[in-house]
Amino acid sequence: MSSTRDIDALIDMMARLPGLGPRSARRAVLHLIRKRAILLSPLAQAMQTVAETARECLNCGNIGTGDICDICTSEKRANGEICVVEDVADLWAMERSGVFKGRYHVLGGTLSALDAVGPQELRIPRLIDRVTEEAISEVILALNATIDGQTTAHYIADQLEGRVQLTSLAQGVPIGGELDYLDDGTITAAMRARKSL
Amino acid sequence: MSSTRDIDALIDMMARLPGLGPRSARRAVLHLIRKRAILLSPLAQAMQTVAETARECLNCGNIGTGDICDICTSEKRANGEICVVEDVADLWAMERSGVFKGRYHVLGGTLSALDAVGPQELRIPRLIDRVTEEAISEVILALNATIDGQTTAHYIADQLEGRVQLTSLAQGVPIGGELDYLDDGTITAAMRARKSL
Repeated sequence: MSSTRDIDALIDMMARLPGLGPRSARRAVLHLIRKRAILLSPLAQAMQTVAETARECLNCGNIGTGDICDICTSEKRANGEICVVEDVADLWAMERSGVFKGRYHVLGGTLSALDAVGPQELRIPRLIDRVTEEAISEVILALNATIDGQTTAHYIADQLEGRVQLTSLAQGVPIGGELDYLDDGTITAAMRARKSL
Repeated sequence: MSSTRDIDALIDMMARLPGLGPRSARRAVLHLIRKRAILLSPLAQAMQTVAETARECLNCGNIGTGDICDICTSEKRANGEICVVEDVADLWAMERSGVFKGRYHVLGGTLSALDAVGPQELRIPRLIDRVTEEAISEVILALNATIDGQTTAHYIADQLEGRVQLTSLAQGVPIGGELDYLDDGTITAAMRARKSL
């Protein structure tokens, strides 16, 4: 490669991002270099800012800029409902649909015997504490309709049985589908038609 | 969106890169935030470094870190051959193949009456100067096999006629290519340029 070491290093880093490979990383970097004044410096600055400020909410696991995220600190969202999601991407998908007005709990994955992921790794104890602390009346399990997601939902339902109303997203979530890839309408329909376990 | 303004701004910027859209930008940013210590800060730093150092070579138009790029300063590459390419991406592709040992001239596009791109915009005058200054014996036109690319090749050939040997990349069946998937033009070109075994 004739490009210098710094440029090669940048291409290598970009190529490791999900959704990008070596060829698209080269295209992206070339595009950035051509418009370096209006694109590359601001992007570097934006990344640095996020790198310095972004952190996981100690309460729910969402990504924000403080120890406690905006949703957990907002009194408006304290409506007695917690929506349990696997991942921050799922939380973002729920927020885009705009159908849910309560708070979230981000597990950070699903239970998996193979990968040795137990309840402790998934903030499940914290979820159980929150049900009491925040006077929660309903826990909505918005986990992916995959085997691991449903196993995790059953485990959480067992833990919270009798202490709170438990619901899950309605039919409308396709089998094998993941929230982050669903359109807003499907998420809204599924949220509206949620049912008791 | 529940993510804060900084994160949204970063996603918006990433979504404008070629090959990325809003969804893949969200995935990439989430991936970066999760591994912010080992990925996001170094990437921001790498971008800042490139933004500060990268510039176009004043001689050939390649991207490097000085006023004159590594290839133009290397005495080893002064073998009397110049390979003319449209774009830095094409130069990188040639370098990956490792087949060419001379220097390059990056036009930065193709002649286009519609887009008002004339010879001045494409460093063609500089190319003509270089043929004399660098004692060039052969100019290889490695332009894309598109109408604009071939128009530009013809224009350059007219300008340099009689002053230097002019060649262009051979046209034919790509290595690993299957005839059934090739367009008629390629098959016609390959047939016309057939060679003895």
